[in-house]
Amino acid sequence: MGNEYVHGYNGKENERLSDQADTLVELLHSDTFYPAGSTVLEAGCGIGAQTMTLAAKSPEALFTSIDISQASVDEAEKRCDELGYKNVKFEQADIFNLEFKPESFDHVFVCFVLEHLANPVDTMTILKKLIRPGGTITVIEGDHGSAYFYPDSVYAHKAIACQVELQKRAGGNAMIGRELYPLLVKAGFNEVCVSPRMVYVDSSSPGLVEGFTKKTFTAMIEGVREKALSEKLISAADFDCGIADLYRTSESDGVFCYTFFKAFALKQD
Amino acid sequence: MGNEYVHGYNGKENERLSDQADTLVELLHSDTFYPAGSTVLEAGCGIGAQTMTLAAKSPEALFTSIDISQASVDEAEKRCDELGYKNVKFEQADIFNLEFKPESFDHVFVCFVLEHLANPVDTMTILKKLIRPGGTITVIEGDHGSAYFYPDSVYAHKAIACQVELQKRAGGNAMIGRELYPLLVKAGFNEVCVSPRMVYVDSSSPGLVEGFTKKTFTAMIEGVREKALSEKLISAADFDCGIADLYRTSESDGVFCYTFFKAFALKQD
Repeated sequence: MGNEYVHGYNGKENERLSDQADTLVELLHSDTFYPAGSTVLEAGCGIGAQTMTLAAKSPEALFTSIDISQASVDEAEKRCDELGYKNVKFEQADIFNLEFKPESFDHVFVCFVLEHLANPVDTMTILKKLIRPGGTITVIEGDHGSAYFYPDSVYAHKAIACQVELQKRAGGNAMIGRELYPLLVKAGFNEVCVSPRMVYVDSSSPGLVEGFTKKTFTAMIEGVREKALSEKLISAADFDCGIADLYRTSESDGVFCYTFFKAFALKQD
Repeated sequence: MGNEYVHGYNGKENERLSDQADTLVELLHSDTFYPAGSTVLEAGCGIGAQTMTLAAKSPEALFTSIDISQASVDEAEKRCDELGYKNVKFEQADIFNLEFKPESFDHVFVCFVLEHLANPVDTMTILKKLIRPGGTITVIEGDHGSAYFYPDSVYAHKAIACQVELQKRAGGNAMIGRELYPLLVKAGFNEVCVSPRMVYVDSSSPGLVEGFTKKTFTAMIEGVREKALSEKLISAADFDCGIADLYRTSESDGVFCYTFFKAFALKQD
């Protein structure tokens, strides 16, 4: 009985986690669709986390998904084959050294990439050259400065600030979400339209509490502990207190908020 | 010609500002509707800023709008008469000393009130007694800790923190928006559902830049300058730098984000 209950519970729990994943996919990708025959460059596909969603949602579009890491590309290709998607071509390639012809794609899609790059406007400018006139770019990024919660905690904000600082020292920007509008305008895109995609989590959504507050956001901050301490950004006590306070927001009276930003823009000429 | 252009521009500008006001009304109130004959208590109506929207959107519901300030109630009543709404009764009354019979309203509506009160759970508990079983409460609050922007600025956050601290010293809570879920659960409401209503402003929405970033949020923070300085919360130079940085976010490459929270809950018994 105990065992059955556990299985039953796990089954329900898995369903909830899968609901949570669905919720985020819906939030970020529900309005991305490419018509039959259109060619789309996914720049920075990683291990294909977004690629499978793109391929599934636009089954008649033709995707070229690139990443600088051969290992990631291999993993993405393997996952894609396993799921049976036939409309994606994978290539190892460096965004700053691409061999595609100018204007050779109808659209470009970039998700969770700019946050890691020191020169996001240059990147957008390079990608813009690859888009045919009248084509579009879609960019999705998070923003760690958009995280706030109840109960509020100075320590939690300090722990998050460590992640932001480390990403900055690595040449990236963990708060790039809010900047998408000026970035795309500076790169010369037209009709730039940014929409925030806010994730609001309270205990009425246990799947999001588990899957987003705990296992996505807090786990990610927790993951920089060693580096934050070795770079002397914070004391161990303060960092651990911050992580405890982030987990505290996942209790029944806690609330957690985070916002992703999605930009859509036109290459006019 | 010059003159005509100016008029044309002002006309367009007024339209944009009015669009902005409409955008916020839509964002906060579009999903609030009370059926014909239902009785609704608006607790803390002030000068009727939300009352007119309620009356217009639910023309056959019967509103009782109260405020602790007789002057505010008089002003609200005058505005309501001028606009010709017949479905609102105004009364001066103190939420903590009400003479309404228990369960005498179908619904309660509270907007931008809890932020000023030292005991929001008690307030919710008192209001809950006035709702019939099966009736609902709707609560809308802002959250000044939800403000973030590009370019980011330590000084701007310090200036905002002054407003938050002053509201705290006055017994209120300027960051109450994120707390609505636990507050309503603690007060014994059922099926509590909170939805964030995020205002995202970039220069593609000049009406929001002018009407929200500058004239609503930044002007409000600017308004606490004297008190923040006299209570020695900040130096004049830092405060002024923070305000300048908030205005900076309204320039063509700036971005401003703020989130309101709307809660809807059931009184089951």
